[in-house]
Amino acid sequence: MNSNPDIFQATLSLPNFPDNFHFELEALQNRARAGIFYTPHGPLLTPAFAPVGTQASVKSVSPDQLEQLGAGLILSNTYHLYLRPGDELVAEMGGLHHFMNWPHPMLTDSGGYQVFSLAGTRKIDEDGVTFKSHIDGAAHRFTPEKSINIQENLGADIIMAFDECAPPYDRLYNERAVLRTHSWAVRCAGAKTRSDQALFGIVQGGIFPDLRQQSVEFLTQLDFPGYAIGGLSVGETKPEMHAILEVVDPLLPENKPRYLMGVGAPEDLVNGVLRGVDIFDCVLPTRLARHNAALTRTGRLNLVNAGYAHDPDPIDAECTCYTCQNFSRAYLRHLINAKEMLAATLLSIHNLHTLLQLMREIRLAIFEHRFDRYAQEFLGNRR
Amino acid sequence: MNSNPDIFQATLSLPNFPDNFHFELEALQNRARAGIFYTPHGPLLTPAFAPVGTQASVKSVSPDQLEQLGAGLILSNTYHLYLRPGDELVAEMGGLHHFMNWPHPMLTDSGGYQVFSLAGTRKIDEDGVTFKSHIDGAAHRFTPEKSINIQENLGADIIMAFDECAPPYDRLYNERAVLRTHSWAVRCAGAKTRSDQALFGIVQGGIFPDLRQQSVEFLTQLDFPGYAIGGLSVGETKPEMHAILEVVDPLLPENKPRYLMGVGAPEDLVNGVLRGVDIFDCVLPTRLARHNAALTRTGRLNLVNAGYAHDPDPIDAECTCYTCQNFSRAYLRHLINAKEMLAATLLSIHNLHTLLQLMREIRLAIFEHRFDRYAQEFLGNRR
Repeated sequence: MNSNPDIFQATLSLPNFPDNFHFELEALQNRARAGIFYTPHGPLLTPAFAPVGTQASVKSVSPDQLEQLGAGLILSNTYHLYLRPGDELVAEMGGLHHFMNWPHPMLTDSGGYQVFSLAGTRKIDEDGVTFKSHIDGAAHRFTPEKSINIQENLGADIIMAFDECAPPYDRLYNERAVLRTHSWAVRCAGAKTRSDQALFGIVQGGIFPDLRQQSVEFLTQLDFPGYAIGGLSVGETKPEMHAILEVVDPLLPENKPRYLMGVGAPEDLVNGVLRGVDIFDCVLPTRLARHNAALTRTGRLNLVNAGYAHDPDPIDAECTCYTCQNFSRAYLRHLINAKEMLAATLLSIHNLHTLLQLMREIRLAIFEHRFDRYAQEFLGNRR
Repeated sequence: MNSNPDIFQATLSLPNFPDNFHFELEALQNRARAGIFYTPHGPLLTPAFAPVGTQASVKSVSPDQLEQLGAGLILSNTYHLYLRPGDELVAEMGGLHHFMNWPHPMLTDSGGYQVFSLAGTRKIDEDGVTFKSHIDGAAHRFTPEKSINIQENLGADIIMAFDECAPPYDRLYNERAVLRTHSWAVRCAGAKTRSDQALFGIVQGGIFPDLRQQSVEFLTQLDFPGYAIGGLSVGETKPEMHAILEVVDPLLPENKPRYLMGVGAPEDLVNGVLRGVDIFDCVLPTRLARHNAALTRTGRLNLVNAGYAHDPDPIDAECTCYTCQNFSRAYLRHLINAKEMLAATLLSIHNLHTLLQLMREIRLAIFEHRFDRYAQEFLGNRR
C-alpha cells in the first residue's frame, strides 16, 4: 500500500499542505490503516494515541518518562495556554516544544471545544465566541483568526481549525454549527501564516449522517493536510459513534491522516482503527491515574480496593511498563492511601503504556494483515 | 588512611557489628572524613546525604529518578510505616527494599523523634511511649523492643536505637533523657535478632557538652557499628550545633560512621563534614520543592516570583541535573502557577541533585586534600 510519490508531489504545491508534512500510507487491512505522518519534529507512526498535556505538561509524568514510554505525539490545549502562561510568553520562550521540552511532534486544539464547554459564561456569534476565564472570570474573545494566531505562537506541528462542537442529538443546532464550522475553517486557512504547521479541518455534524457527509465534502474541497472528526464521544452511544465513523471514513481522502478527537478508551481505539482512524487523543489515562484507576487490556482496576492491600502482584503481570516491572498492587495502594504523589505518576506511566503499547500492537497487526482477528479477540476479552 | 584489617576482624565477633557491615576510612583532612560503609545492599560512599522517603516514597520522585541522581542511601520513617501500611505488611511484601523498589542501602529511624513530636498526645514512661496516631487518633505504644521489632520487619540496612530527643536548652530534661536513651539503647541492642542490619546508637544531651560527652562514653562501650548524633537542628543556634559536633567528634571511634540526624541545608552539610560527620538526612530538598523553592549552591530561589515569568534560564546555569538541563525558570514558574505536579518533581530532582552533587564534590575534595579550602569558598559564597 505504498503511496505514489507523484500524488504527494502534486499536493505539496497547495497552500494548506506545507513542504514539511506528508502522510505515507504503509499498510491497509480493510479500513484499518498504518502510516507515517512526517512533521518538522519527526515522523509520527500511525495509528497513534496522543497523551494530553493540557497546560504544557502531561500530568504527573516528565518528558523523559514520556520518551521512555514511546509517546509519538503530545496534545496541548490552546484555551488553557492562552490564559496561562499566555501564548506570547510561550512564543518568547521558543515555542511549546522548547518550553515544555518535547522535541517530537505536537498538536494543539483550537480552543473551541473548551470555550463551548463553558456553558452559561460564553456567547457565540458568527464572528467568534466571547467567554470568561475559568481562572479569574476575565472576559476574552476567540475568533478563527485569533485561534490560529495563538496556535502559531504556541508552534505545535499540527494545529486545528476553530470549530463549533454542538450537542450530538440537536439537529437544528448541528445544522447551524456545521455551517459556522465551515465558514470558520475557511477563515482559519486564510489566517494561517506559518508553513511549518499543518492545519487540520474538523468534521462536525453530530449523529446525523447527511450533515457529516456535507461537512466532509465541504472541508475536503479546502484540501487540508489532515482531517479531524469532532463532536464524537460527547454523549452519543458507541453504536452511534461507530456509525458516524463509518459514514465519514470512506469520504475522507486516503492520503491524509484522520484524527478522532478526545477518544482514548482501549476499546474505542480498536473500534476507531477498525473504522479508518489514524490519530487519537484523550486525558483518560492520566485522569484515571489521579483517580487511582489502572487501565488494563481487559478492564479497569481500582487500586484503593482493600482486596489489593496484600497483593504482591503488579497491576498486570504481562505488562512491560516501569510500574508493572517494579511495583506491587499493595505498594500502589499504600501510595494512594498515604496520598503520595508517586501514585499518580506510577499509574499514569502504566495507563499511558497500556494505550501506547496497544497502538504499537495494532500497527504491527495491520502490517501483518491480522488486525481484524486482533480486534475481535481484544474486544471479546473486555470485561 | 586505610584501616587496619585486623581491627575489623576483631570487631566482627561482637554482636552489634554483623559480618555484613564494615566502615572503611579512605581519606581524612583535619576532621573531614571520606569512607565506605559496606552494607548488605552495597557500599555507601561517605560523606553521604540521604533523601527521606517518609512513607516508603521520596515525595514526587521515582526510584529510577533517585538512581539517576546517584542517591546512595534512602531514609524511611518507622512511625509512619508502622501506622500505614503497617510493618507486618511491608515484611510480607519482602521488606522495604523490595516494597518500594530501592535495591541500595536504606535506613530507618526508630520512631522516637516522631512520637516525641506529638506533644500533648503522647505519654512517656521508663518503659516506653504511649501515643495517638495522627491518622485516626488510635492509641499505640512504642518501646525500645517494639521499635526494633518494627525496624526488623521493615528490614533497612541501618536501623536506629529508640531514643528520647529533649528540647535542646532544658538541662534537667536532657539529663533524664540521656539516661533514658542509654537504658533504651541497651534494650534495643538486646532486642535485635537480625544480623543483616546495623543498629546505630544515638548520642543525646542537648547543647550541654558534659551530657554529650557522657552519652558518647556510655554508647561507645556498647560498641555499635555506627553512631548518630541526635537532638541537633531542633531549635539551637548554628554555633551551638557546631560546638556540640566539636565535642562529640573526637570522642567517637574513628572506624565507625557518624550520622547527624535531620540536617540537610547545604551549609550545614559542609559544616558537618568539617566536624567529622559522615552521613546526613533531611526532608529539606523535597519539602522546599513542594513549596516552590530551589536550593542552589549560593542560596534559594522562590520560583513563584514574578521576576521569573519571562526568564529563559535554568535554575542554575552550572547545574547538570535533568531539570536545569531541560527547563527554564519561566516553565517551572508556569507549572507552579498551573498547579501541575511536575513542578514538585522537577524541583525535587534539582534540589536533591544539588545536595547529592555537593556530597560528591566534598568527598573528592577530601581525597584531594583541598576540602578546607573548598568549604571556606563554599561558605563564603552563601547569600
